[in-house]
Amino acid sequence: MIGVFDSGVGGLTVLKALLRELPAERFVYLGDTARLPYGTKSAETVSRYALQAAEALAGYGLKCLVMACNTASAVALPAVRAQLSALPVIGVIEPGAEAAVAASASGRIAVLATEGTVRGGAYQQAILRRSPEAEVYALPAPLFVALAEEGLSEGPIAEAVAHHYLDALFAPAGGASAPDTLVLGCTHFPMVAAAIRTAVGPAVRIVDSAETTARHVRAALCQAGLAQAGGQGGLRLLATDAPERFARIGARFLERPIGIREVELIDL
Amino acid sequence: MIGVFDSGVGGLTVLKALLRELPAERFVYLGDTARLPYGTKSAETVSRYALQAAEALAGYGLKCLVMACNTASAVALPAVRAQLSALPVIGVIEPGAEAAVAASASGRIAVLATEGTVRGGAYQQAILRRSPEAEVYALPAPLFVALAEEGLSEGPIAEAVAHHYLDALFAPAGGASAPDTLVLGCTHFPMVAAAIRTAVGPAVRIVDSAETTARHVRAALCQAGLAQAGGQGGLRLLATDAPERFARIGARFLERPIGIREVELIDL
Repeated sequence: MIGVFDSGVGGLTVLKALLRELPAERFVYLGDTARLPYGTKSAETVSRYALQAAEALAGYGLKCLVMACNTASAVALPAVRAQLSALPVIGVIEPGAEAAVAASASGRIAVLATEGTVRGGAYQQAILRRSPEAEVYALPAPLFVALAEEGLSEGPIAEAVAHHYLDALFAPAGGASAPDTLVLGCTHFPMVAAAIRTAVGPAVRIVDSAETTARHVRAALCQAGLAQAGGQGGLRLLATDAPERFARIGARFLERPIGIREVELIDL
Repeated sequence: MIGVFDSGVGGLTVLKALLRELPAERFVYLGDTARLPYGTKSAETVSRYALQAAEALAGYGLKCLVMACNTASAVALPAVRAQLSALPVIGVIEPGAEAAVAASASGRIAVLATEGTVRGGAYQQAILRRSPEAEVYALPAPLFVALAEEGLSEGPIAEAVAHHYLDALFAPAGGASAPDTLVLGCTHFPMVAAAIRTAVGPAVRIVDSAETTARHVRAALCQAGLAQAGGQGGLRLLATDAPERFARIGARFLERPIGIREVELIDL
């Protein structure tokens, strides 16, 4: 099994990309809905929660753990790797940073993320490690999380919020110095990509860290000889609270219906 | 001391009203910032958290506990009262319902709240207990929480969100059957009252449950002979996580600066 961990339903965008890239694999997804959001919590608290979740998922017998949560990837990846030493643990930051550096011609890269991810600086560091000349602009955009969860991903409100966050950096006044690449550094943000596109214009490359992470996981499994050759695949969904809400909101993120009985409640 | 409990910074609107009503009292405020928001969590989880918080606050030596959190008031008030049997425990639902019934001429009352508060039905029941003929419309409006915390309480985005939530009930097409009273059933919503006013028009009475609760607390203390006759008052601020964020966002809610050192970090 491949474990996928997130603070809530947002990581289902990563799971959706993984199911598309690796249809023969069996997945177990854990959303820590009792304690979301992680994006506004301190690094210590997020680390503690991520370690508990990783330990619980490891109990399902994993060959690989994907930390779909950007905030947890940013602050807790080394600690989780140390705890689960035998298991490959893949976060979303490094694949996103790699794709951004590959996509950018000008080296001016913007990262849209939660407050916690921006403050931690993980994307900024991961990009600068690969491209020391890059200019990285990290912008917190927490309202997009609420908009995506409420089903207001598209339309005038989402577009007004996109302009609110992005115009200072991408509006014509910024002119030639505007970034040419924008990383969606939160699992919720692929849901509002169309609204974001209206604010940044058609020329900017948008890097979806869910897709880049899924491709990275497939490559890592193939390289390690761990990829499933055939079979039907499978999926278990776990949540730490409110399975009804998980099923209702998660269905939009996964783009398929989720039955309330499909969501298993677990305690960490 | 008077204890004030909330899931985060929102209850500071209640604290602000209490400080105004009872300037000679000493207050201790606890925001459970490690586990917010409560509004999307299950009743069981919210009850468990509220009991832990109430127990911790009781340790400070209280004469009264105010549950400023609407969600916790809605689902956990009986359990907290049972646990702290010697202590008066006052929630925000009953005072808000009482004020709404007093304010409404038509008996058509709308309640704007979080998902959890709406689903629990506590406002609806508290209003109908006082006025069995009332027509109560409960609307979840979770985006206002994010807007208030991000400092976007006013302006075109907040107004667009207000129209999104309220037009179906209050727009002219609703005509004569629109409610004449609107209860702000979440601690965050007084922050966006101006935007809400643009959507409901000038005639609707807006009941601020922070203010009504503060008046109720003063009346209860006076009646019990527990009100502080004089003195300078005082305030301790406790949070379970991210004191820097608490100070920064909380200052807007309390309408006065909060020093980072003023916020004590505690573990529940």
